[in-house]
Amino acid sequence: MQQRSEETRAHILKSALSLFSKNGYDATSVAEICQAAGVSKGAFYHHFVSKQAVFQSLLEGWLSGLNLQMDALLNAAPDVPSGFMRLASMAGPVFRDAQGQFPMFLEFWTQSSRDPALWQTAIAPYRHFLELFSNTLAKGIQQGSIRPMDPKLTAQALLALAMGVVLQAVMDPQETAGGSVAEQGIRLLFEGLKPHQEGDQ
Amino acid sequence: MQQRSEETRAHILKSALSLFSKNGYDATSVAEICQAAGVSKGAFYHHFVSKQAVFQSLLEGWLSGLNLQMDALLNAAPDVPSGFMRLASMAGPVFRDAQGQFPMFLEFWTQSSRDPALWQTAIAPYRHFLELFSNTLAKGIQQGSIRPMDPKLTAQALLALAMGVVLQAVMDPQETAGGSVAEQGIRLLFEGLKPHQEGDQ
Repeated sequence: MQQRSEETRAHILKSALSLFSKNGYDATSVAEICQAAGVSKGAFYHHFVSKQAVFQSLLEGWLSGLNLQMDALLNAAPDVPSGFMRLASMAGPVFRDAQGQFPMFLEFWTQSSRDPALWQTAIAPYRHFLELFSNTLAKGIQQGSIRPMDPKLTAQALLALAMGVVLQAVMDPQETAGGSVAEQGIRLLFEGLKPHQEGDQ
Repeated sequence: MQQRSEETRAHILKSALSLFSKNGYDATSVAEICQAAGVSKGAFYHHFVSKQAVFQSLLEGWLSGLNLQMDALLNAAPDVPSGFMRLASMAGPVFRDAQGQFPMFLEFWTQSSRDPALWQTAIAPYRHFLELFSNTLAKGIQQGSIRPMDPKLTAQALLALAMGVVLQAVMDPQETAGGSVAEQGIRLLFEGLKPHQEGDQ
C-alpha cells in the first residue's frame, strides 16, 4: 500500500511538471493533472493540498538536487575561487537538464511578486543560495583566497549574475551559450576578488 | 484635433500602465483600459491595434528614455570602465522610477517565451543592449582601458548581472539595495577586465 501511494505521488508530480512546462502554471488545472496522471481528485488531494503544493514540491526536489551538487563541488575544491569556478562549469549541464522548465519558474516568480503566500515559497530558495554564497565568500576571506569585502553584497552580485544567466537562457536559448556566459562572468568577478599581491598599489 | 488625439493616446498609455502594474498584463482587458482612460473602444483601436501594441509602446517609451541616459553617461565618461561604473550608479534611481512595473515586464517576458510574436517584442531591447555593451567593450579594448577578451561573451555576462539585479529587486525589494549590488558587481567585473600592468605575471 505504501509503495502504491509513493507511485501515485510520483505520477502526479511527473504529469504536473509536463503540463506546467508545456502550457504554463496558471493555465494548468488540477483536473488536467489528475487526468494526465490517471488518478482521481480524491487521490490528488490525499497527496497535495493544492496545485501550489505540487509546484512547491517540484521546486524543492529540483533545488535539493542542485544544492547537493553545489555543496559537493564547493567542498571538494581546493579553495573558494576555484569552488565557484566549478559551480560555473555546472551551468551548462544544469541548463540542459532544466530545459523547458525555466519559463514555468519565471511565471511562478512573477505571480509570487503579487501574492504574499506564493512569495514565501519563491523567496526561500533565493535566501538559501544567498546565505550559502555569503558564507562561502566569508570562508574565502578568512582563508585569504579572497580579498576582504562585504560578503553579503558580493553574494548578491554573484547570485544576480546566476539569475541573469538563467533569464538569458529562457529568453534567448539559441543565442545564449549559458555555460560560457556564467564561466566568463564568474571568472571576471573572481579576478576582482583576488587578494591584493605585494607590490600592488 | 491633432492635439486632442495625442492626449487620448497618452491617456490610454497612462491608464494601461497603471492597470498592468496593479493587476498584471494578462488580467487586464482592453475594456478596462478604455474605462479607466475614459475613451471608447473605437478611440482605443484608432491608436493601438491590440493590448500587446499598448504594452510594446510602454516598453519602447521606457527603454528609449533609459537608452538616452545610458548613451549620455557612456559618452561623457573619460573611459569605458568609468562609463560602466556610472551606469551602475544609475541603477538606484532607475529602480525607484520603475517601482511596481517590473513584475509586469517579467510577466510579459514569461509569456513571450511561449509566444513567437511576443518574443520578437521582448527580444529586441535585449539584443539592443547586448550590442551597445559589446560595442562599448570593444571600444575599451581598442583604447587600452580593458584587457583583450571576447566582447560579446563579456557583454552577455554584464547584461546577465544587470538582469539579475532587476530580478532581485522584483523578488526581494526589502532586502535588495539594488543600486549597491549593481555597483559591487560592476566594480568587481571591471577589476577583472583591467589591462594587465607591467610586472604582472
